Amino acid sequence: MISFDHRIKVYYRDVDQMGIVYNTRYLEYFEESRTELLKSIGLSVTKIEEAGIRLPVVTSYCKYYNGANFEQELIVNSTIKTIPKAKLIVDYKINCADNLSLLVDGYTEHAFVNSKNKPLKAPKLILEKLNL
Amino acid sequence: MISFDHRIKVYYRDVDQMGIVYNTRYLEYFEESRTELLKSIGLSVTKIEEAGIRLPVVTSYCKYYNGANFEQELIVNSTIKTIPKAKLIVDYKINCADNLSLLVDGYTEHAFVNSKNKPLKAPKLILEKLNL
Amino acid sequence: MISFDHRIKVYYRDVDQMGIVYNTRYLEYFEESRTELLKSIGLSVTKIEEAGIRLPVVTSYCKYYNGANFEQELIVNSTIKTIPKAKLIVDYKINCADNLSLLVDGYTEHAFVNSKNKPLKAPKLILEKLNL
Amino acid sequence: MISFDHRIKVYYRDVDQMGIVYNTRYLEYFEESRTELLKSIGLSVTKIEEAGIRLPVVTSYCKYYNGANFEQELIVNSTIKTIPKAKLIVDYKINCADNLSLLVDGYTEHAFVNSKNKPLKAPKLILEKLNL
Repeated sequence: MISFDHRIKVYYRDVDQMGIVYNTRYLEYFEESRTELLKSIGLSVTKIEEAGIRLPVVTSYCKYYNGANFEQELIVNSTIKTIPKAKLIVDYKINCADNLSLLVDGYTEHAFVNSKNKPLKAPKLILEKLNL
Repeated sequence: MISFDHRIKVYYRDVDQMGIVYNTRYLEYFEESRTELLKSIGLSVTKIEEAGIRLPVVTSYCKYYNGANFEQELIVNSTIKTIPKAKLIVDYKINCADNLSLLVDGYTEHAFVNSKNKPLKAPKLILEKLNL
Repeated sequence: MISFDHRIKVYYRDVDQMGIVYNTRYLEYFEESRTELLKSIGLSVTKIEEAGIRLPVVTSYCKYYNGANFEQELIVNSTIKTIPKAKLIVDYKINCADNLSLLVDGYTEHAFVNSKNKPLKAPKLILEKLNL
Repeated sequence: MISFDHRIKVYYRDVDQMGIVYNTRYLEYFEESRTELLKSIGLSVTKIEEAGIRLPVVTSYCKYYNGANFEQELIVNSTIKTIPKAKLIVDYKINCADNLSLLVDGYTEHAFVNSKNKPLKAPKLILEKLNL
């Protein structure tokens, strides 16, 4: 299992007229955290793409327990639990940095495709960094 | 069953460096379509909120089959199949306007809460418009 | 002078906790209107890019008089007044569709560059459609 | 003069199909940096709003010299040079964290209004923190 805690802060651009983060922005926080998780094990998404591999999202799931507010600090945890075959699965939990209460959780599934959008098996480049 | 087809167009702001719509924007298209579905049965979200009722997203799920491109026209279908009790469930399908191929589908679940975020039963205001 | 009125509607995703459209979204509405202005004279931005020409924004200016609200319909007017040499200048006005009151105005300037980001003179492809 | 350097990183959500940050996202980076500038002198925007004061953007201006890329780190400098009377003016510069080359600069002007959108003079709450 590989896991990473990434700290973010909520800004005005992400908060809707209910005074809470708009539902899709948490999925943007997922992306930010996932990028940092991969970087933490030596996998820059830029370098993955330069090697001709793309990781488009094929499924996203998100459960919203409580809304985050403007200027709140959040910990976005992302975790890879299984060695990917055809798909990479990343799980997320977003907690208040303050009191650690759970706000949101969910997951994304990613295919491996080449630049012509043809499916690939899990590339060696990625597998060799995932010592699960 | 209540169903609505809403036509949208992809602009530059929504397209990422893979040349396809960024994954979270489809969920924004879901919101746009849902707002128009509700309006089509006489339910303005603004009036629902003025009546003290909010419909926060509590679950979102999205499956991505193919990416939409810049300047492509899409049909975002939203459907309500069941009479809500504690939650409103809306299903979505996004197809190319052109060749009708399926790009994305998914659903959102919405709670009913008052302005203090207390859960409500499905409000009469909404139920009486949902002649399913 | 070439001018185009494009109608848009404000959705939840664009409204902040002041209950008005977040300042940068109007610039996204500018883009949407500009794309439709160009299309109205037979210039698809997709085709411009396929011809190896890009139109990055090099200056943006926006003045905000009044905030637009959720579910409000807006008319986004965009206008090209001058034949471009090194830059294309587009002016915008955003008015309420309802009472025609002015909410926002501004402009964007665009360079012409090739795919390697080298500046170009105003391309023939564009000039021949701009019968100002 | 009050000045603050805020470091941010470019994620996939902000990059368009030219492979550079979409023009409006820099203005979101401006907001993020401005929020941190104010916090650095003891002015939380949340607390300003709780005191009944809002700071809507009334003008934005942005000049784009070079595009930022995915996973690039940026320094977003924001500066307040003058004591505000009717308006707060904030200047910005966005540089590569790496080689310090200038990518974008610009400014925003903010009105002071109460919760009913009535203009206010520069509030004491803000002036007393701005020891320019």
